Amino acid sequence: MLFYDSPNPAPNPRRVRIFAAEKGIELPSQEVSIPKREQKAPEYLGKNPRGQTPILELDDGTVIAESVAIMRYLEALHPEPAMFGTTPKEIAAIEMWSRRVEMILMSAVGAVWVNTHPFTAALPGRNAEWGEANRPRVADAFRFFDESLKNFEYLAGPDFSVADILLLTTADFADFVGCGMPDDCENLRGWHERVSARPSSKA
Amino acid sequence: MLFYDSPNPAPNPRRVRIFAAEKGIELPSQEVSIPKREQKAPEYLGKNPRGQTPILELDDGTVIAESVAIMRYLEALHPEPAMFGTTPKEIAAIEMWSRRVEMILMSAVGAVWVNTHPFTAALPGRNAEWGEANRPRVADAFRFFDESLKNFEYLAGPDFSVADILLLTTADFADFVGCGMPDDCENLRGWHERVSARPSSKA
Repeated sequence: MLFYDSPNPAPNPRRVRIFAAEKGIELPSQEVSIPKREQKAPEYLGKNPRGQTPILELDDGTVIAESVAIMRYLEALHPEPAMFGTTPKEIAAIEMWSRRVEMILMSAVGAVWVNTHPFTAALPGRNAEWGEANRPRVADAFRFFDESLKNFEYLAGPDFSVADILLLTTADFADFVGCGMPDDCENLRGWHERVSARPSSKA
Repeated sequence: MLFYDSPNPAPNPRRVRIFAAEKGIELPSQEVSIPKREQKAPEYLGKNPRGQTPILELDDGTVIAESVAIMRYLEALHPEPAMFGTTPKEIAAIEMWSRRVEMILMSAVGAVWVNTHPFTAALPGRNAEWGEANRPRVADAFRFFDESLKNFEYLAGPDFSVADILLLTTADFADFVGCGMPDDCENLRGWHERVSARPSSKA
């Protein structure tokens, strides 16, 4: 298999690198440069017509796009340590919190990113007003996670899971975009220190 | 367990109803009226602070929010027929296509819905221009799925899966919002007829 990777600050490839590091999986990889727009080159579009990284290409030619799909594939091959839960309630909680990170936080951070950041705001179809309107939504989303982290050490419960990987990579990308965690989010900041102290966070 | 449900056109509760019908699961349910804004009432917010339906409340008081999390919980309890795949490649393909429905289509339909539809466009923080800019994105997304349905009977391969449930409910909601499938999407229209002919689609 070959992992088509892009370096930080791209948040989605980093999810998979952290996931693989937590499992001790070595992924042969090839870099796709986003500043050089290599993800929009014809050869890459032939593999993923969405023109996004990461993808995982299997030896039989199958291409898996979407970071969470790649992580689920790796989980199926290497079940331990479980990152998507094992009991029905764990599986549900991890999916619920993962989706909340995507739907509440990542969607708002993405709106700020594409509509206001100098790297992308000049592309056609952008709307600066919509981007700015999403800054308070990002802050509200962080406060929602801060509140929920009162009760548990990790986002979906007592154990580190893929939900933490999604929140960590999104929070760090939000910081890069200029809409990072509010100062008053103490539970969230404590959680961020804990997960950033794991060796996998450097992946 | 008790399923807090909202009737059509709400797309997310319908996902779970279709999923349960495919598995032959009877879900005791209670209606939450979105026109009456019952999902924002204090008692409901105590169960799901996001103020969204559906949720599944377990007998021990655990609340599972997010339609896909509820479906994964039900899949863990009732594995047959498998809706999230069983082999690593099936699991990955179903997750990839499910996420593409959410990220490419549902996000654009949602942007049209909240920013342009009379039911929601008058709420604070809306942006009519952004809503209108998402109409062509909805059409592009439908064309992407149309192209992929050239090769397979169902969205993620030869078998019906949760990815089809997400696409069906989103396509029908898009139609309600006024941005339904373009006429030239023949593969998609054939697929829509096939999945709409399943008894579960009436759930």
